[in-house]
Amino acid sequence: MDISAIANQALERAGEAAASGPNAAETLAHLADGEMKAVNALILERMGSPVPLIPKLAKYLVEAGGKRVRPLVTIAAANMIGYTGDAHLKLAAAVEFIHTATLLHDDVVDESDLRRGRKAANLVWGNAPSVLVGDFLFARAFMLMVDAGSMDALHSLSRASSIIAEGEVRQLAVKGDIDATVGSYMEIIEAKTAALFASAAEVSAIVAGRPAEEIAALDTYGRELGLAFQLVDDALDYGGLAQSLGKNTGDDFREGKVTLPVVLALKKSGQADKQFWARVMAEGEQTEADFETALELLHRHDALKATLAMAEDKARTAQQALSVFPDNKWKTALSDLAEFVVQRAS
Amino acid sequence: MDISAIANQALERAGEAAASGPNAAETLAHLADGEMKAVNALILERMGSPVPLIPKLAKYLVEAGGKRVRPLVTIAAANMIGYTGDAHLKLAAAVEFIHTATLLHDDVVDESDLRRGRKAANLVWGNAPSVLVGDFLFARAFMLMVDAGSMDALHSLSRASSIIAEGEVRQLAVKGDIDATVGSYMEIIEAKTAALFASAAEVSAIVAGRPAEEIAALDTYGRELGLAFQLVDDALDYGGLAQSLGKNTGDDFREGKVTLPVVLALKKSGQADKQFWARVMAEGEQTEADFETALELLHRHDALKATLAMAEDKARTAQQALSVFPDNKWKTALSDLAEFVVQRAS
Repeated sequence: MDISAIANQALERAGEAAASGPNAAETLAHLADGEMKAVNALILERMGSPVPLIPKLAKYLVEAGGKRVRPLVTIAAANMIGYTGDAHLKLAAAVEFIHTATLLHDDVVDESDLRRGRKAANLVWGNAPSVLVGDFLFARAFMLMVDAGSMDALHSLSRASSIIAEGEVRQLAVKGDIDATVGSYMEIIEAKTAALFASAAEVSAIVAGRPAEEIAALDTYGRELGLAFQLVDDALDYGGLAQSLGKNTGDDFREGKVTLPVVLALKKSGQADKQFWARVMAEGEQTEADFETALELLHRHDALKATLAMAEDKARTAQQALSVFPDNKWKTALSDLAEFVVQRAS
Repeated sequence: MDISAIANQALERAGEAAASGPNAAETLAHLADGEMKAVNALILERMGSPVPLIPKLAKYLVEAGGKRVRPLVTIAAANMIGYTGDAHLKLAAAVEFIHTATLLHDDVVDESDLRRGRKAANLVWGNAPSVLVGDFLFARAFMLMVDAGSMDALHSLSRASSIIAEGEVRQLAVKGDIDATVGSYMEIIEAKTAALFASAAEVSAIVAGRPAEEIAALDTYGRELGLAFQLVDDALDYGGLAQSLGKNTGDDFREGKVTLPVVLALKKSGQADKQFWARVMAEGEQTEADFETALELLHRHDALKATLAMAEDKARTAQQALSVFPDNKWKTALSDLAEFVVQRAS
């Protein structure tokens, strides 16, 4: 094999690596493999209950997988700063429990059909167990935090939990509101998504007893990563920039959630387009062809592109926040994760 | 006025005091008035949120009143043991928040029409805000506990919260189950009601740094009081022993909740009665006359009387648990409270 063939192969591989986003998340998952196994074991152990329906329902949701991004952030941050205890494992499991509890309650609130690619738990067992098992996981999250033994970490995560609920209520209140602004949208996603990412990141520095500057840096990293994550999710609900639509698109549209792509498209809309959005979002009158029309409008006004540009901006801010930490493989992995979060939509 | 007239008046008053149960709770409320005002101020302050729907919905429920029995127990226990700090105020508010959160979620779970004599919040605003504001109050409860600063109190109340959710799920699972036993019924009410009373009582001794024996005694007091409380509630759902039915009777019956009165009646039932209970409870087929029939069966088998006898027994155990504490007016008030809880049904 001559030099140019080898070079070409290397370039190809580099191209694949750059193009195929999953590698950054996979790299992180691989790095954290041992500790994530411990976190998963904790999750399974702490969702146990003599009441059979509880582990059954909790397992249904937990085994469906999900990306476990939030606990991964906690684990990676702890390693980046050289934490040597094990409280971060309990906090990572607590973070995933809080997240899972909010998913269960969200599905009741949104009357969802699907969650993590499976039938949503509320459709399988009804609303009542979803509400109650959510409460159970939430309570168990706090028991894990008590075990972790840090009052400051408890403060951070209980505050985040309260902010998440506020964000969800605010989102309810603006459902179908075509006068939503970029500012009001950002406030909602900061509360309902970014607050938990921020807390997931900073609790590691908290239990490690690191200085305030490092706690603040991780809070910023998590918050900006969370914003990027939600912005991309909201773009992906309209298929992102891909030619073909992925799975699970159109949920926000059907539910009348006025997310950033719609806010941005509305800003550039004439009277006719505004009437379209008012009908489908505010009045909730949708025909089968409407989603296609919505996509056409979003692309015409570059609303998805602009949403993803904003996500990229947040991801960059997240990466910059890591500059106070010394270079190591974990810092690189966290930095790459921010990039990956955005790449998955393009 | 001659001596006998005065004596008669005094006797009459004593008779009224003994007969009219509310006085024991009122005495306690009066004793604790200053501190309960502080707890109420904390409750109002900590349910605040820039999202208008949250304080609106929370206030609707909190202002409807309720008896505030649980925080009263926390306050009274703290005073009985001579605690001089202020952490008990925050814990009392946290206990009421946990209780209010479970009420909001219960109403969604049970599809209730009424709560505290008003239209249930889920009927006024829908299920979604009830679920989310419940989550908000739950999170705020934990923030209050963090402020109280005791990891052991956090352990007690987070554990109680997890047990409550387990009890509620178990109750769901046995809905309409006419094979329910006294044992399974007791396990459910111990979890869904008594666990929070136990924690409400013991956290005062915990923050006061009292010895394990006193913490255990207050745990027992609260648990037995809670059991008595729920037994009486379940008897009152069928009107207790009164000649005329009070308000809000028949909820459990309509929802197919097999509570102790029904369990006890079923134990004494012949084939025909069993078929009646199976139809109305298990199959949920009820006609208008069925509630009357149920009452007739419960009275014929002395099921309400036996339920209240069991409540009395629990109340007595609660009182006995207080024997490790020195006599003072707070101990008397807590002891009287246990009696009052039972008296309200006869």
